[in-house]
Amino acid sequence: MKVSIGIDVGGTNIVGGVVGQSGEILHKIKRPTEANAGSAIVLDRIAGVVTDLQASIAEGSEVTAVGVGIPGLVDPEEGMSRFAGNLGWRNVPVVQELERRTGLPVVIDNDVKLYVYGEAVAGAGRDCRHVFGITIGTGIASALVSDGTIFHGFKSMAGEIGHVRMDGVEENCACGLYGCLETVASASGMVRQARKALLEGRESVLRNWYPGDENFDGLTAADLSKAMDEGDELATGIMTRAGVLNGRALAAAVMTISPEIIIVGGGGALAGDRLMGPLREQLNELLLPDFREGLKVVVADNNDEAGIIGSALYANKRISERSGR
Amino acid sequence: MKVSIGIDVGGTNIVGGVVGQSGEILHKIKRPTEANAGSAIVLDRIAGVVTDLQASIAEGSEVTAVGVGIPGLVDPEEGMSRFAGNLGWRNVPVVQELERRTGLPVVIDNDVKLYVYGEAVAGAGRDCRHVFGITIGTGIASALVSDGTIFHGFKSMAGEIGHVRMDGVEENCACGLYGCLETVASASGMVRQARKALLEGRESVLRNWYPGDENFDGLTAADLSKAMDEGDELATGIMTRAGVLNGRALAAAVMTISPEIIIVGGGGALAGDRLMGPLREQLNELLLPDFREGLKVVVADNNDEAGIIGSALYANKRISERSGR
Repeated sequence: MKVSIGIDVGGTNIVGGVVGQSGEILHKIKRPTEANAGSAIVLDRIAGVVTDLQASIAEGSEVTAVGVGIPGLVDPEEGMSRFAGNLGWRNVPVVQELERRTGLPVVIDNDVKLYVYGEAVAGAGRDCRHVFGITIGTGIASALVSDGTIFHGFKSMAGEIGHVRMDGVEENCACGLYGCLETVASASGMVRQARKALLEGRESVLRNWYPGDENFDGLTAADLSKAMDEGDELATGIMTRAGVLNGRALAAAVMTISPEIIIVGGGGALAGDRLMGPLREQLNELLLPDFREGLKVVVADNNDEAGIIGSALYANKRISERSGR
Repeated sequence: MKVSIGIDVGGTNIVGGVVGQSGEILHKIKRPTEANAGSAIVLDRIAGVVTDLQASIAEGSEVTAVGVGIPGLVDPEEGMSRFAGNLGWRNVPVVQELERRTGLPVVIDNDVKLYVYGEAVAGAGRDCRHVFGITIGTGIASALVSDGTIFHGFKSMAGEIGHVRMDGVEENCACGLYGCLETVASASGMVRQARKALLEGRESVLRNWYPGDENFDGLTAADLSKAMDEGDELATGIMTRAGVLNGRALAAAVMTISPEIIIVGGGGALAGDRLMGPLREQLNELLLPDFREGLKVVVADNNDEAGIIGSALYANKRISERSGR
């Protein structure tokens, strides 16, 4: 049996899995990234995950390839991580270093591109030719997978929908611009707004949930969902606006690209219809009828594992193509 | 010598040309479309243009394919014009009808996609992998050509950037929505705004240029350029706003797709820096630095003929692929 290994390198954890050819996860490992230790140590840790996953594989099975999803700007052709803010990486030759450590063929790409690839070929988009995915988490990013091919664009930079400036949004963004979609419509952006409102004295049930926590540091996006279910105005307003803004940004992308399906993933997708409701309404309002008809707008099938699945299957595909098999 | 024929079918004229393999036009014909006569007559007229172009070809030359660009919604796989408002067409089997009339292999596609293809392979984008083109004319439409492949999307609908809703725009659009980019930022949209302002009594040099024309029916986009050069406030305001709005819509597309070059074509491109100045400024303001660096923003090389060139070269490519040559 042929399998491949998929790794998702986050700022907090490295998660990896052995993946069968239909996208089924056969074994999974999760370990802290310890990004502060520097890239050489993190690469050692990734290689360690690969080795331990290999050890779990049934006798007679063969690992065809290792795929690694890395946040930030990735040059998949050169096998380099150009810039990954939350890892502290700049121009790290990931493919070379991991191939040397593991002896296996390694493919890298941007983590969101591989996540959406996973959903496109083995998740919610498996029956669709043109898949547009958006992850709503700490930030907001997107990817386009068309006929099984990831669209990279110039300098592999496609996918920064989170930095589209939205009218009526004035917040400064960590990127240096202001008014970026992700400042208010990402999971972190929603929490940030709620904390700010609470510190300014706004009434909300959220206030009672953190009695000893004067700065509301413990507040999460899940709290906002819970408060919204209790009819809380503050939480409802923030969540609804996030859905509306995501819908508006998506509408522009849909008219320009015409995907068959929009897949929403990341922590924000856990809010379900609380977020997806206003998002879908906005699409309905803004899209030309021909675009509305037949367009699917769904949450990811494998929100937690699409990154592993996509990394593994994409690496398998790339290595197969390269060897002409 | 192998040549192909490219035809651009507009609401007013059919233009066609014999095109060499590097995109050079060897012979060109222009004839009225007479769309009111119905699709059968228009198809006869297109076939007539093809036959006459064939007659112009040097002895020993071979026509490999005929490419036809049609406005509106085109299904290139089925060879059907699904809907072309300004031709009055719905579900016209163009490929079948033209192949029967001409005996040549015919390929059809949306006119803007073929125009941008022409610029991508034999115009301003010839050295770029990821080309995003926008035509600013009666309406505004776009196309993405990546590694020499036209991106079609679901139902071949990609490219309707002209119907993205822009904040601060309230005008009703012919499409049934309101606030669409093209209502104010297309060449026609600019003229419409100028006429409206003149009819409302707004001061402008434009008023003096149409002494007998109380409704300013003769007003053109070229007049706006000329008035702007004379420092006219009305014309300058309309043109600048159109540049800004096009720039804003393009910025969102650039962050999502990451093209290497933006090519601006159509009648609006004739305004040159009057329009391109504010358009570029807006991109500079809204794009992340990595997107700004290296991005080219230019007007089309062959504004009048890119449609013919693209239709011919694309048809040649598709037919070659099909026959495995």
